[in-house]
Amino acid sequence: MTTVDGLPAGLQGVVVADTRVGDVRGEEGFYHYRQYSAVELAERRTFEDVWHLLLEGELPGAADRAAFADRARPLRTLPPAVLRELPAIAAAGERASPLDALRTAVSLLAADLGLRPTLDAGPDELRGDALRVTAAVPTLIAALWRLRSGREPVAPHPALATAANYLYMLHGEEPDPAHARAVEQYLITTVDHGFNSSTFTARVIASTGADLGAAVVGAMGALSGPLHGGAPSRALDMLDAIGTPDRAAAWVRTAVERGDRIMGFGHRVYRTEDPRSRLLRGIAQELGGERVAFATEVERTVLDVLAEHKPGRGLSTNVEFYAGVVMDACGIPRELFTPTFTASRVVGWCAHVLEQASANRLIRPAARYVGPPPPQPVPAA
Amino acid sequence: MTTVDGLPAGLQGVVVADTRVGDVRGEEGFYHYRQYSAVELAERRTFEDVWHLLLEGELPGAADRAAFADRARPLRTLPPAVLRELPAIAAAGERASPLDALRTAVSLLAADLGLRPTLDAGPDELRGDALRVTAAVPTLIAALWRLRSGREPVAPHPALATAANYLYMLHGEEPDPAHARAVEQYLITTVDHGFNSSTFTARVIASTGADLGAAVVGAMGALSGPLHGGAPSRALDMLDAIGTPDRAAAWVRTAVERGDRIMGFGHRVYRTEDPRSRLLRGIAQELGGERVAFATEVERTVLDVLAEHKPGRGLSTNVEFYAGVVMDACGIPRELFTPTFTASRVVGWCAHVLEQASANRLIRPAARYVGPPPPQPVPAA
Repeated sequence: MTTVDGLPAGLQGVVVADTRVGDVRGEEGFYHYRQYSAVELAERRTFEDVWHLLLEGELPGAADRAAFADRARPLRTLPPAVLRELPAIAAAGERASPLDALRTAVSLLAADLGLRPTLDAGPDELRGDALRVTAAVPTLIAALWRLRSGREPVAPHPALATAANYLYMLHGEEPDPAHARAVEQYLITTVDHGFNSSTFTARVIASTGADLGAAVVGAMGALSGPLHGGAPSRALDMLDAIGTPDRAAAWVRTAVERGDRIMGFGHRVYRTEDPRSRLLRGIAQELGGERVAFATEVERTVLDVLAEHKPGRGLSTNVEFYAGVVMDACGIPRELFTPTFTASRVVGWCAHVLEQASANRLIRPAARYVGPPPPQPVPAA
Repeated sequence: MTTVDGLPAGLQGVVVADTRVGDVRGEEGFYHYRQYSAVELAERRTFEDVWHLLLEGELPGAADRAAFADRARPLRTLPPAVLRELPAIAAAGERASPLDALRTAVSLLAADLGLRPTLDAGPDELRGDALRVTAAVPTLIAALWRLRSGREPVAPHPALATAANYLYMLHGEEPDPAHARAVEQYLITTVDHGFNSSTFTARVIASTGADLGAAVVGAMGALSGPLHGGAPSRALDMLDAIGTPDRAAAWVRTAVERGDRIMGFGHRVYRTEDPRSRLLRGIAQELGGERVAFATEVERTVLDVLAEHKPGRGLSTNVEFYAGVVMDACGIPRELFTPTFTASRVVGWCAHVLEQASANRLIRPAARYVGPPPPQPVPAA
């Protein structure tokens, strides 16, 4: 299926920009941020180091690291005008997803911060905007979640790094360091991943010269789509539906034969195992526990059944399966899986917004009109 | 300037989708909604008829018209949970633009309405969502504006059509019918205009299966960019800067010689006069008054100076110049020019979201990585 210009539908594989942020090599099962393997960064670095890499273009040295932390940590505290409105935003989202509430809160925050158009702001100002918005996102997620369940928000902990502080703000107590590190590694693996739909959305919006907040809010909307960011909790729902290890084979077989899509398996880009999945599996297994063992068993069953029923498709476990397992094992509630993904991806969106602004050109494609030929006379009312 | 795939930068002119919503024929100075000339629709129909055309695919008959009004009018009244939050949203935007506040409010509204993903909702449900969001936008704009200036919002007037009701909600009194009709015609002319950046943004977000609210909020972000929707008030600012007719020639000449862009002139697509400009000039002249006469004189001067200094470029008046003049003459405050544009363009965005959802394919292009080659070993922290 192609468009009239012979482009693949959905622009799949069509190069629309140059980037220095990173890339995905689907055939090799490899992806990178700047010139570094994302998996290696997750193994060897902190979230803050990777954030610095994306925002400033390079990994920090010791002095930069301390200065970056000093700048970023105070920005986790929400402006009072935003904090005051969170109960109402949380309540209005009663029937909506936490991601919708987060979108509203980020939009309010961006307005409160008075971000200027990317067209007018220089690179330093834009980096400052990116830092402010990114630093506040975990606080917003945690506060909205607690308010929704009738509890007061927990203020950021000044001594904890991003991932540990996120868990702290969710539960009000300092987390198990193993949990904090596992969540940190998850966050690092999802900072950026090629030119996906939300990243592209952020760049299209930034290309109009709009402020960074507008771009992030739009990207969050794209991420809320089930075809993009919406599936990690569904993989866990599957584990629930299966219930016990002995039921796995029959459940999966029935689902595959019925033609259901099995959540957490297969990827549009990777033709090998998803490198994020491999890393997160290892992290999950280090965390251990009955639930992780069950997930591993279900994974094996699904892969067996898929290999049997769809031979040659090479369907592998994708990031969603073990992302859900890891977050669950670390005490992140299921409804926050996608918002948590947002907390890291916003780093990548901001890097792309900065890059777009640095050499901007309005992104404005065309469509082919295929309706009845105009002009037909407008009939009298 | 082209991308690596030989595509024009910014995808200009690259056909990425088929549409039945409408099109722009820049060479002919013609644009249409469905199979009808947009200008002819503005001359002969109401805003509600055109809204029906975009949403339902056809102009309404008498019975459809009444039924459509019956459905749409109650939806102008805001849900109490949204109305309650507007003072805070208006205040948080103190340093931001009214469009940022509107973006937050629409995001809150969409969450409050509990819109389902376009992926799951059928066409009838999506049309209902579109109606609800679109109907509420003028109410939100007017309420936020009044709150910002310390006044209570005015509830929608059940007997007035969209444009008249908008003016009524702004000023608290029934408007001059000539003003209501002029604003209505302005709104009709700006419902849709090809595959511009905000429309494309809405379609990219909808392509992920996200809900209609997410798509509209993202599109509003794109529209807030100065390169897209941000200029109508600047054309009026120019009139202020010029001050009096006798200063027009010298002011314009100086600006052009300095290389300034003259707001309200030139268009990326039209190589002839912008057909919206022609219509709006006529509307402005019917409204009459000293200010319109001044604007007409400045326009003539600008065109003369541009023809002299940039011969062969065929720079004409675009929609922004007389859009500003008409809105100003009808009592719409300058800071609401772009939000008012949003109130009509949301009709077009929704039509595009519905069309995208009806034959969806995830929009996910690619980028070319041009940074240092990976993988380079991650240095020790």
